[in-house]
Amino acid sequence: MSLAEKILNGDVRSAARLMRDIDDGMASATAELKTLYPHTGKAFIIGITGPPGAGKSTLTDKVIEAYRKKDKTVAVVAIDPTSPFTGGAILGDRIRMNRHASDDGVFIRSLGTRGHLGGLSNSTNDIVNVFDAMGWEIIIVETVGVGQDEVDIVRTAHTSIVVSVPGLGDDIQAIKAGILEIGDVFVVNKADRPDADRTVRDLEVMIEMNHPPEGEWWPPVIKTVAARHDGIDELIEKIEAHRNYLIQSGKLARFEENKSATHFTELLKDGLFRQVYTRLHADDRLARTIQAIAKREVDPYSAVEEILKHNLK
Amino acid sequence: MSLAEKILNGDVRSAARLMRDIDDGMASATAELKTLYPHTGKAFIIGITGPPGAGKSTLTDKVIEAYRKKDKTVAVVAIDPTSPFTGGAILGDRIRMNRHASDDGVFIRSLGTRGHLGGLSNSTNDIVNVFDAMGWEIIIVETVGVGQDEVDIVRTAHTSIVVSVPGLGDDIQAIKAGILEIGDVFVVNKADRPDADRTVRDLEVMIEMNHPPEGEWWPPVIKTVAARHDGIDELIEKIEAHRNYLIQSGKLARFEENKSATHFTELLKDGLFRQVYTRLHADDRLARTIQAIAKREVDPYSAVEEILKHNLK
Repeated sequence: MSLAEKILNGDVRSAARLMRDIDDGMASATAELKTLYPHTGKAFIIGITGPPGAGKSTLTDKVIEAYRKKDKTVAVVAIDPTSPFTGGAILGDRIRMNRHASDDGVFIRSLGTRGHLGGLSNSTNDIVNVFDAMGWEIIIVETVGVGQDEVDIVRTAHTSIVVSVPGLGDDIQAIKAGILEIGDVFVVNKADRPDADRTVRDLEVMIEMNHPPEGEWWPPVIKTVAARHDGIDELIEKIEAHRNYLIQSGKLARFEENKSATHFTELLKDGLFRQVYTRLHADDRLARTIQAIAKREVDPYSAVEEILKHNLK
Repeated sequence: MSLAEKILNGDVRSAARLMRDIDDGMASATAELKTLYPHTGKAFIIGITGPPGAGKSTLTDKVIEAYRKKDKTVAVVAIDPTSPFTGGAILGDRIRMNRHASDDGVFIRSLGTRGHLGGLSNSTNDIVNVFDAMGWEIIIVETVGVGQDEVDIVRTAHTSIVVSVPGLGDDIQAIKAGILEIGDVFVVNKADRPDADRTVRDLEVMIEMNHPPEGEWWPPVIKTVAARHDGIDELIEKIEAHRNYLIQSGKLARFEENKSATHFTELLKDGLFRQVYTRLHADDRLARTIQAIAKREVDPYSAVEEILKHNLK
């Protein structure tokens, strides 16, 4: 039986192995992903993002708990900001692992932010597809929401939750403005801090300035204190309301197309580059070209044009 | 006279126009960049990165001021986290603009984090090259240091400053661990806050654990209160010490090669993708493929393999 077949039979250890292969960029993973792909498209994918220090992990933990109470299975892909170099899991993640370790209905997987030749959003997509094909009902993708990579990742979720926190200064406000358009539900966490109401108001003003067209989803702003479980029920309610909106408005189909376009585009970019790079790497052309560029004997733009001419039909 | 020639003659308005073209991804920009490339390699490039709220903008402002006092011209490329969607400049940036508006020796340019088909680090590189070819002596690249994009950008600087701030919580600590390896100088800003010494000690412990080999650069950790100008002189001293280290150790040459390799690789990736994507877009193949993927009639991995076969020699 292939790895993919075992995974479709629900074998968690095979899934973990395939995810490791994906993370390591192993070519063999592609064949398995091909087998799994027709079985995807059933899971509900929730994105959770926000600046460092906003309490995303605690919030994720509470969302897991809430869906487990509804008897839904929950898988988590945590994009791990600590490991651009080490590939290791963060402490918080291990803690969460332990907390849910005895629960067969929870599967948490960390993903490093380095070493993904094909881009982080691609690897995330592949891992989400593994969970989806296996039949996990809720898939949470948790990531620090600052860089473009992270924004791209959150775009692949059906419902995106943007977490803020009171009083993190102007820089944070600026970032909020940037991720405003990807938020379906806004959470002001640690809302027992002073200035929570101001943060809520700021967000509401920004949403209003951005005013979604008549009949479209209007992103709600809710207050939580995740550590005390305050506001979590309301958060789940809003997530479900957005999910229903997607289904009833017919937007789910368009969403699937956008997501397919993104995934396909990323895979194409990666595939083209890998093949040509491998060719250049096979002899000393790559090294010679780079040295010439460093010495300003050739400019990188002309060097690339030359390579395109020789490699594209 | 071409745009590039005007730029080489020091015409700031032409430089601003080319940067706009680069930002907009205009194909015409490449010809100008080719002309400029042989004139690059003279500037000293400083990267400033750190989490949101660390006071990077104020610190950058003080570094500009310090180099202006040494009669150096200073150009700044600020990667703007507010504009993944709007492309607009952040408020803080406009303020800095005004402060230095009457100084011909300062040029500040914001760069959105969206719409860069060729990747943000590529656009940053191109804009740094424009400044470099024009003869700007110090080029500061300021960016929020969380995502992989940002780490890649800071890698292209000769000297990378990683800014921390006391008491931002565990999430920040985690990020610090991740960007430890790119820091040449560590700054604990807002060091009049409680716990500043603990943050310094934490960083020093992490650097020690990472212990650079004998004879290599040992990243110093210094305290600043940028808003009050405290510690800025020491920061400049450390930056200059690192610069001298690069020159005397012969590492500058290896640095240029690494940077050329990165730039070339990114341009190649982008060039390959653009050409093939344009072909697919010319008829309805792209749309048909994406619809088939969304409907699970074909998997994206097989679709990409097919396209590679038809487009690569």
